[in-house]
Amino acid sequence: MHIEVLRLSHRLPRDERISTHVALVARAFGASRILYTGQHDAGFELSVSRICDNWGGKTASGSGFSVSYEKSAVSVIRARKKEGFRVVHLTMYGLPVQDVAPSLKACEKLLIIVGSAQVPGEIYALSDYNVSVTSQPHSEVAALAIILDRLMEGRELSGLDFGGKISIIPSERGKKMKTP
Amino acid sequence: MHIEVLRLSHRLPRDERISTHVALVARAFGASRILYTGQHDAGFELSVSRICDNWGGKTASGSGFSVSYEKSAVSVIRARKKEGFRVVHLTMYGLPVQDVAPSLKACEKLLIIVGSAQVPGEIYALSDYNVSVTSQPHSEVAALAIILDRLMEGRELSGLDFGGKISIIPSERGKKMKTP
Repeated sequence: MHIEVLRLSHRLPRDERISTHVALVARAFGASRILYTGQHDAGFELSVSRICDNWGGKTASGSGFSVSYEKSAVSVIRARKKEGFRVVHLTMYGLPVQDVAPSLKACEKLLIIVGSAQVPGEIYALSDYNVSVTSQPHSEVAALAIILDRLMEGRELSGLDFGGKISIIPSERGKKMKTP
Repeated sequence: MHIEVLRLSHRLPRDERISTHVALVARAFGASRILYTGQHDAGFELSVSRICDNWGGKTASGSGFSVSYEKSAVSVIRARKKEGFRVVHLTMYGLPVQDVAPSLKACEKLLIIVGSAQVPGEIYALSDYNVSVTSQPHSEVAALAIILDRLMEGRELSGLDFGGKISIIPSERGKKMKTP
């Protein structure tokens, strides 16, 4: 399965850290790409690229994990739909993730939309699935992690192969790493 | 199971949003309490209280979901240990969550520690379990969501009963809510 994540309406400085967490979760939990709209942010892109340089950016779909800025969310959604992507919008108002997951697992290509404060109604309408994680207010970072975990069926926890220069050797105490 | 979450070294303004996401994930995914050290932050406490006022704060352990400031993480850990809590520290250097989860599920009371940038070695030493979610750099918000999801065995996704004034009616499109 090829998964891309679209982060809506990135705002500076407010979203700097949250958007970075969204991007790193996308990478660590098996997505191939993060796209974002809102304010262009070279610092955000650099943070993500640095993680890929050190920890690896290899993805299941073969291309390296990438981050890119897009002017229009609607254009991205329309273009991806033409390429056969199914579109998932994470919103606390949507259908429970555990009910929708079986249908999503059957898709070859998914675009997962992660909103910010106010998401325009058009995004709800254009999405094939509006999906909720708990129907409670919490965090887009957590919602993305949970849906990707369900789609990957927990395989991401055993460590995907990112081909990085650095990796961790799990240990009971302290910090053990493989470095070049 | 009674679960409390300890957020370390909250810094203003840097951690305002991330700590709020940590607290809301703790609540939505079944923990009973969030404690935090670092800088005292009345705004953070108010944000969490407001969510509980509207969306409910009922917890499995009977008490309402609460947020409280603590001066010393080490004192909290020592006190909880005396009360029979087992202590879990989330760190990307730890043992894989999927390997540790069966032992954790057997515990009655857990304190889950969510770090910030630099966690002192003492926390690794005092913790009963240093636990990792993917062994990759990503987000403490995502790591907390995944470990709570594993401990709750996905029950949190079907909607815990928070006894709130407001709740969501899941829907395919748009926003449907129950309000008083």
